[in-house]
Amino acid sequence: MKLATLKDMSRDGKLLVVSKNLKKAIHAKSAPTMQSALDDWDNVAPRLKEEYDQLNAGNAEAAFDFDETACTSPLPRAPQWLDGSAYVNHVELVRKARNAEMPPSFWEDPLMYQGGSDTFLAPHENIKMESTDWGIDMEAETAVILGDVPMGAKKEKTLDYVRLIMLVNDVSLRGLIPQELGKGFGFVQSKPSSAFSPVAITPDELGDAWKDGKVNLPISVDLNDLPLGRVHAGVDMTFNFGKLIEHAAKTRPLSAGTIIGSGTISNKDKDGGPGKPIVQGGLGYCCLAEERMVETILDGKPSTPFMQFGDNVKIYMNDEDGNSIFGMMNQDVEKYNPPA
Amino acid sequence: MKLATLKDMSRDGKLLVVSKNLKKAIHAKSAPTMQSALDDWDNVAPRLKEEYDQLNAGNAEAAFDFDETACTSPLPRAPQWLDGSAYVNHVELVRKARNAEMPPSFWEDPLMYQGGSDTFLAPHENIKMESTDWGIDMEAETAVILGDVPMGAKKEKTLDYVRLIMLVNDVSLRGLIPQELGKGFGFVQSKPSSAFSPVAITPDELGDAWKDGKVNLPISVDLNDLPLGRVHAGVDMTFNFGKLIEHAAKTRPLSAGTIIGSGTISNKDKDGGPGKPIVQGGLGYCCLAEERMVETILDGKPSTPFMQFGDNVKIYMNDEDGNSIFGMMNQDVEKYNPPA
Repeated sequence: MKLATLKDMSRDGKLLVVSKNLKKAIHAKSAPTMQSALDDWDNVAPRLKEEYDQLNAGNAEAAFDFDETACTSPLPRAPQWLDGSAYVNHVELVRKARNAEMPPSFWEDPLMYQGGSDTFLAPHENIKMESTDWGIDMEAETAVILGDVPMGAKKEKTLDYVRLIMLVNDVSLRGLIPQELGKGFGFVQSKPSSAFSPVAITPDELGDAWKDGKVNLPISVDLNDLPLGRVHAGVDMTFNFGKLIEHAAKTRPLSAGTIIGSGTISNKDKDGGPGKPIVQGGLGYCCLAEERMVETILDGKPSTPFMQFGDNVKIYMNDEDGNSIFGMMNQDVEKYNPPA
Repeated sequence: MKLATLKDMSRDGKLLVVSKNLKKAIHAKSAPTMQSALDDWDNVAPRLKEEYDQLNAGNAEAAFDFDETACTSPLPRAPQWLDGSAYVNHVELVRKARNAEMPPSFWEDPLMYQGGSDTFLAPHENIKMESTDWGIDMEAETAVILGDVPMGAKKEKTLDYVRLIMLVNDVSLRGLIPQELGKGFGFVQSKPSSAFSPVAITPDELGDAWKDGKVNLPISVDLNDLPLGRVHAGVDMTFNFGKLIEHAAKTRPLSAGTIIGSGTISNKDKDGGPGKPIVQGGLGYCCLAEERMVETILDGKPSTPFMQFGDNVKIYMNDEDGNSIFGMMNQDVEKYNPPA
């Protein structure tokens, strides 16, 4: 089942059922909004599935052409957004870039931060920032939307609570991170609003590619329409979503609509970058920080800048036949002028 | 205006208008839930105010006795919860307890962490935890609920976005904090679900006690019905709510329903503690960590344990005539058994 949220005058938008091939959509009859569907998932999901089957069979009344640019985030606001850092390879590289040591426990105990969930960006919404001095970077990730998870749920059970899967651009302000993390309380200013893919899907839509609590497909990141990364989301994911959910739920329950992200996808074997060919086995990057780190290792200093005003990032994931699964995030960086 | 949320079968509860003296309530006619009122505040607030005035005048139809034990958190779930640490005195003491230095910049640049906003505890709901080894502690604070704040709003303007004020118990797991903060990404496991006072009030209800973006009254904390603290929320608040909101909104807008906390209230001049008289000028504590720190300074080691199963904490704030303003948080610590 594939779902999306149409922008309207309300804060939570209007729930859409989207056809498997992303060509057609209908206004969901079974629930007005994504959050209301998640709040009562066991009752609503089977009815949404009927609507989805009718749509795919060409039998849905009032089907219309699906326009992902008219969509907001599947959840325009959510009760909770937690982002793991499951690709420990990325953590190790970013720490190296900050001249910070990574403790060996990081290979066993997941890193996770609590993010803001009140103002997610639409998938085709620009990233507006006051200054490029803040080091504007993308982070391409996978994420899951959960049902109600009891406190203390064990990782053997937690994948049962995964309702939907989507992609994330966890926008990061690299220039603000060292000072903010140095204060010891985690990210607030250095993690502005994240964006999500237009379409969220149930795990069964991925077939064999949803395995061991991981999305086993490459994610595509294009910077100014040149490939930056074709990084595999499965192979180097140290902690699967089951483990990440267990970590999040250790001392508190998680309520329906909680989103958990994988952290920036990262492969150990890299190459490529904007304008450079992505060669066999060299899969590029899901964020510029990592490319800059590899440049530093190779050349003594980074040569790729962070994103500038006017730069564009596209993030999407294709199935093995080359068809888009989640639709695309397509975002320009734009100058923002704060109120006087 | 005073508002509360009645528990019902729904996730967001039912909005109540509560009389100034907390004796009577009515089901709000102007909005079904607190979040829906905040989403459309400019339209809804004047109508709620009419209902409030009628209730206080004894003219409200269908008024009933207000029972704060039937209430859930004013916002049972919120799009965002950010907690500042505005009493730098507290930060300095807690850091000392961890043998960590406090950088001088902490007197100018607020500390703030992003908390989970999906599962707030009701004001009379027990704090259920698997283990007291985690070091269960209360943190008594004031908090504001905001309207929509534009990104980059300046502190001279941000107090205009304060819609409601309430009290918080920011439950903390002291035993988990050092290891988790050591990982560098802030709090997840060491800050379980917070509780809020039953009643949220508009700033005008505080009269002169809402001044310079601070609540200028003492907060009361009782541990097992003995006074632990009568700490003044105004005098040592280094950063007012205007500054905290500016900090939170630097790189992203904040949406209606965002809650910002003050951090544990702390006064420089301390004394008292459970079973000990609170003497003139010695105002006690809003959390046990701080009492333990003072004990360590005086006696070389802490003598007060963190909360044990069966312990009770009550947090409330009285006006100058001794009347409760927000109702009470009244919570026992209870053993939790996680699912197998």
